Amino acid sequence: MNQATVIDGVDVSTPAPGHVLPPRAFTSPAVYAAEMERIFGRSWVHVADLPRLREPGDFVAATIGTTPVVVVRGHDGEVRGFLNACRHRGATLAEGQGNCGRQLRCPYHAWSYELDGRQAGAPNMEKVEGFDMADYPLNKVHAEVWDGHVFINLSKNPIPFSQHLAGMDRKFASWGMADLKLVERKVYHLDCNWKLIFQNYSECLHCPIAHPLLNQHSHYMSGDNEPPQPTYLGGRMDLRPGVETLSMDGKSSVPRLPGVSDEDARHVYYYAILPNFLLNLHPDFMLTFQLWPQAVDRTDVICEWHYHPDAIARADFDPSGSIAFWDLTNQQDWELSDRAQEGIGNLGYQPGPYSNREELLLGLDNWVQEKLEGQRG
Amino acid sequence: MNQATVIDGVDVSTPAPGHVLPPRAFTSPAVYAAEMERIFGRSWVHVADLPRLREPGDFVAATIGTTPVVVVRGHDGEVRGFLNACRHRGATLAEGQGNCGRQLRCPYHAWSYELDGRQAGAPNMEKVEGFDMADYPLNKVHAEVWDGHVFINLSKNPIPFSQHLAGMDRKFASWGMADLKLVERKVYHLDCNWKLIFQNYSECLHCPIAHPLLNQHSHYMSGDNEPPQPTYLGGRMDLRPGVETLSMDGKSSVPRLPGVSDEDARHVYYYAILPNFLLNLHPDFMLTFQLWPQAVDRTDVICEWHYHPDAIARADFDPSGSIAFWDLTNQQDWELSDRAQEGIGNLGYQPGPYSNREELLLGLDNWVQEKLEGQRG
Amino acid sequence: MNQATVIDGVDVSTPAPGHVLPPRAFTSPAVYAAEMERIFGRSWVHVADLPRLREPGDFVAATIGTTPVVVVRGHDGEVRGFLNACRHRGATLAEGQGNCGRQLRCPYHAWSYELDGRQAGAPNMEKVEGFDMADYPLNKVHAEVWDGHVFINLSKNPIPFSQHLAGMDRKFASWGMADLKLVERKVYHLDCNWKLIFQNYSECLHCPIAHPLLNQHSHYMSGDNEPPQPTYLGGRMDLRPGVETLSMDGKSSVPRLPGVSDEDARHVYYYAILPNFLLNLHPDFMLTFQLWPQAVDRTDVICEWHYHPDAIARADFDPSGSIAFWDLTNQQDWELSDRAQEGIGNLGYQPGPYSNREELLLGLDNWVQEKLEGQRG
Repeated sequence: MNQATVIDGVDVSTPAPGHVLPPRAFTSPAVYAAEMERIFGRSWVHVADLPRLREPGDFVAATIGTTPVVVVRGHDGEVRGFLNACRHRGATLAEGQGNCGRQLRCPYHAWSYELDGRQAGAPNMEKVEGFDMADYPLNKVHAEVWDGHVFINLSKNPIPFSQHLAGMDRKFASWGMADLKLVERKVYHLDCNWKLIFQNYSECLHCPIAHPLLNQHSHYMSGDNEPPQPTYLGGRMDLRPGVETLSMDGKSSVPRLPGVSDEDARHVYYYAILPNFLLNLHPDFMLTFQLWPQAVDRTDVICEWHYHPDAIARADFDPSGSIAFWDLTNQQDWELSDRAQEGIGNLGYQPGPYSNREELLLGLDNWVQEKLEGQRG
Repeated sequence: MNQATVIDGVDVSTPAPGHVLPPRAFTSPAVYAAEMERIFGRSWVHVADLPRLREPGDFVAATIGTTPVVVVRGHDGEVRGFLNACRHRGATLAEGQGNCGRQLRCPYHAWSYELDGRQAGAPNMEKVEGFDMADYPLNKVHAEVWDGHVFINLSKNPIPFSQHLAGMDRKFASWGMADLKLVERKVYHLDCNWKLIFQNYSECLHCPIAHPLLNQHSHYMSGDNEPPQPTYLGGRMDLRPGVETLSMDGKSSVPRLPGVSDEDARHVYYYAILPNFLLNLHPDFMLTFQLWPQAVDRTDVICEWHYHPDAIARADFDPSGSIAFWDLTNQQDWELSDRAQEGIGNLGYQPGPYSNREELLLGLDNWVQEKLEGQRG
Repeated sequence: MNQATVIDGVDVSTPAPGHVLPPRAFTSPAVYAAEMERIFGRSWVHVADLPRLREPGDFVAATIGTTPVVVVRGHDGEVRGFLNACRHRGATLAEGQGNCGRQLRCPYHAWSYELDGRQAGAPNMEKVEGFDMADYPLNKVHAEVWDGHVFINLSKNPIPFSQHLAGMDRKFASWGMADLKLVERKVYHLDCNWKLIFQNYSECLHCPIAHPLLNQHSHYMSGDNEPPQPTYLGGRMDLRPGVETLSMDGKSSVPRLPGVSDEDARHVYYYAILPNFLLNLHPDFMLTFQLWPQAVDRTDVICEWHYHPDAIARADFDPSGSIAFWDLTNQQDWELSDRAQEGIGNLGYQPGPYSNREELLLGLDNWVQEKLEGQRG
């Protein structure tokens, strides 16, 4: 039923047309390793939001697979990405987020680096014959910023970022994403493959069953998907009459975002930007998810709520309803994703058929297959 | 000293005559994987007790290796077993135990199944060309009931259940096992291979050293074993004069089970039914153990205490003495099993010789060897 | 840049001259397995201190990789080492430390062993044809004592212990190490390869950055290293004027050790004895570290503080300042070692160059390489 394609020992067989990927896509450590190398190692990965990188020296650290990276704003205003490992004995230069001051300095032996990566100091190396600081800059990784979202790419020759955005770059301009500020952050530990989270995100057929409250605020069949794009999958759903935003009671404590039109205020936009970023745009706030695979059957998800500074400044600002709404909805989704992992892992699971409202999942599957087969950037 | 037999890369060498299995039987992930496939994947495995499956829709879920299964009582009274994975995207249909109502319904997208496995509903699949619900029933697994004990077999062509019972089916009829009700349940997490638990169970030479209280109630040399059978190992031991049952003080708060004879009331029966069920029959209650291997060196054990409904209904019913007795005895056994795992895992362990009171262990070893070599069903 | 040498599938390539070992030395499970076999399985490993083995029957158990061992003092006063596994069914004979009485007796079936390893009893084996207790002594491992430190070697033909000590045996005689008593013990769980702990220990260039208090008591450039030895790396550092010992305030509550000279009282000696023992000698106490690798990226460290019995007996004895000082310093070092593991594990880390104050690290690297290549005992 499947056509077998084996690359470097990894079977990346095409699944049966219209069916879920074969179980090994969700259970094989070898497939996972290949994905980490060929997908997470070569794609544009979301690592930070610009508001955390306002001032020179502001940095955010993240780990892609097992590779720690750091993005930092330079004195020239540029945001750059580096492998987060000292060129001496490999210690990570920065952890979490913060401001590193004038230079990135290794906490181990104080090798230091300019914010553009050039080495600035290497104590005790003076007498080592042939040592030249110019030979030991930080290893750069490609970094790009899109409207407040910072992406890096570990590949030496990544596809151009504009090609990754594929026309999406102006699509959400009216939400003013770069202006928004973080209000809440939750970290979830899932016992499932990262692709199951994308699958769960990319259809709302499960909403009336799993998310009664969501379905009450936004009808599950109101969705209008774009055709699957090479690097992202998305669409929008309608808010029901009288519903202002997605919160426990459907009300919002704040005005909608300054640029959001009357038309857009009636929708929530859902975009899955492969391979690790989910973007939910509401009339009054932005919800983001980063997916961080930890193993073939474990994924960490960081979910963040962002609001406009003017809203945050209001005396009656209260994001608790939207935080509770999405925390509840997330937990419902995570349980389903974990149960799918459990069932797929059994000895007899045969991939099932997709409905014609699950077209984005097919798009995701195709993207993964092509990446593993190396046919796309 | 050993004759090497390698099947699919798994060395299943015959151990030296009269000696413990070689260390790799307890430490090799490859041997463990072979056991999960050839033993747990092809044997009759105990998954539930009938009292939990009284009404139509009553179900019990379990996981054999990584394969989730569910047994459910149908509207026709039949108990059936299924792979616990939706035919759509694989989510488990049921967790733990309970009553599913008229149908098994997937919590993800509400695909539903009759209790006999036929698909009853597949929302949103109407427009998918060629889709026919008849093509997507739940995957059935063989299920059989023996006197209250529900077993399933993942093999497509299992050995007949009667052959598995091998004459044991009437042996314990007088205890009326199907009538008993669960009173207590304890789950233990052991750091040892599943076979070490069977080994520990199958001889009482360790009793005077490890279980002084047990030995005080039931002399360790009073055991009378049946010759090892193809699928079970067992025997009985005498209660010392004045001891009514195995409890902290040797007393029972309840009359013996209705069908138990004067003769049987002086014994405790111990049967290891391969590969995952241990059955201890006392004059007044039944103790059961399910073994659930988690890894080559980790096993979960579920221990349950079952009493007669008439006993449970008595004002003076008090099972605490027997619960405490077996919890204590279990903990003593688990520590020894874990210590055996530790010592066997070392670089220099050479399998030791069995005594002639450890004949059941040889029977177990032979059974495992034959299963791995595929010479028996 | 590296010359590849592959032995039994393990690449033990020589690193670039003057550079850190390649990443796989710290991240490859195969290299770790080779190290456990060829280094920890064939080297003299520190397992105990003599004060715990004063009386016949006193024992200490430890686990080297996955191999449990036990050292025990015999009735003849001799300290011997054995595989800690009963010759019957493999259970460990002893756990932790204590006194086993006249014999080592298995807690499972009471097989017993004289303290010299001969089997003393095997209950219920009388009727087993051909069974002879003389055939089942405990498996001996080589054990040697150096001035209070007990080492064992799992190899059948270890290098002579005197060759391992390589002239170090009298070097610290004046501290009277065998007389000291344990006062405090802390166990640390690190998320790094064992070699990174040796590397961290073997240079003090990081001290002014990571250990401001240590550097305040003992100048980081005051170190005077011996040339790297085949089996140990070490040197000494000066205490600054007015500093009596390494403690929070640089003061000691007790007199210096009886044999310590005026000259030695101005120093702290630091010796790394490969592959698992670190020895810090202060004027008034001995600090020891045992390294117990658990996985390629996890190591347990046991740190112990030892004082002279006369000091302990004093009314004003107060080791808390030195315990706090080293606990603080340890935590600082462990964080750096863990960060090095994190950075080295990334996809792009290239081994960096050593300074000429990191010559001991090169010595360690060479020792590891030679062991893996089998060119040295």
